[in-house]
Amino acid sequence: MLDNIIDQVSSLIRLNEEEKTYFASKLQVRQFLRKEFVLREGQVCRYAYFVNAGCLRYFYNVEGVENTGQFFFENAWYTDYESYLLEKPSKQNIETLEKSELVLLSKQDLWQLYEDIPQFEKFGRIMAENAFLGLRARNEMLTNQTAEERYLQLMRERPKVMERIPQHYIASYLGIKPPSLSRIRKRILNSK
Amino acid sequence: MLDNIIDQVSSLIRLNEEEKTYFASKLQVRQFLRKEFVLREGQVCRYAYFVNAGCLRYFYNVEGVENTGQFFFENAWYTDYESYLLEKPSKQNIETLEKSELVLLSKQDLWQLYEDIPQFEKFGRIMAENAFLGLRARNEMLTNQTAEERYLQLMRERPKVMERIPQHYIASYLGIKPPSLSRIRKRILNSK
Repeated sequence: MLDNIIDQVSSLIRLNEEEKTYFASKLQVRQFLRKEFVLREGQVCRYAYFVNAGCLRYFYNVEGVENTGQFFFENAWYTDYESYLLEKPSKQNIETLEKSELVLLSKQDLWQLYEDIPQFEKFGRIMAENAFLGLRARNEMLTNQTAEERYLQLMRERPKVMERIPQHYIASYLGIKPPSLSRIRKRILNSK
Repeated sequence: MLDNIIDQVSSLIRLNEEEKTYFASKLQVRQFLRKEFVLREGQVCRYAYFVNAGCLRYFYNVEGVENTGQFFFENAWYTDYESYLLEKPSKQNIETLEKSELVLLSKQDLWQLYEDIPQFEKFGRIMAENAFLGLRARNEMLTNQTAEERYLQLMRERPKVMERIPQHYIASYLGIKPPSLSRIRKRILNSK
């Protein structure tokens, strides 16, 4: 059950068997149903979540409208990194979009790993870099791309989103209403 | 000339004298005039910049308008982290707003430090975390605060900006035009 996460971490840093066992001792595996909340806004995000199976999305509730930030599939990590680092209430909601198995790593345990196995600092650096790059890419998309450009990029780069995510969440991720997404899809189909 | 940067890094990770000397050997000190470009959009941002003296701002050029992202003063680091990490052309401009002394650390040298002095991974992690948190705070400000709230927060939290940065750059940072900033300042003054 922990093979995927240990493989993923081992692809970034070298761990011997003893260190792998110690790392594994810090992890909790939890099962979630489809459409179950992993984090609700107002809660402190106490865990980094590794997707062993299934799919996560995070979203903001803005005056009753859900603004979807991102989707995460097998072997991806997600946490509201700001809430996790600063231990302050999150503005995000994280939920499963499929029946999911998540591996949880608390901040306290990650900080302990930094102390006990210094290579984990490299893991932490790469995680933080990726969090930064993900946020930057999201900003970039929302600032500089039309909805149609966003959708075409999604088609090119994120086949799992196209295959597994319902259209109304994709619309929410693109920052548009479902009917606009239908129009974009029709236009793309007709132009082929 | 390198005392500040070595002190700053030593406040995050423990370095012995030999390691400090090795770190120092990777640094370049450069003098800049006021209003000199440190990075122009389209260039790859090859260095992380530590402000030894003076002040930096970064901005985006959006259809002839300068959108100011942030200001950095003594003992702060800045780099276009996305361009630095991915070695792709930057969309940002970085310039000095005062005569400045900057200490430059190239990506290649930082990666060498990660290899040779593994504690630097912790430094890298904290830098990446701070880059993430800075971007998140900026997003938050632009999304959820009125211009007046932004200005009041700046007054409370960033005295150096209020003292050293000309008003038109502050307006640009707040995402408003200079006359709007004048009105906000008048309103705040009258409400005291």
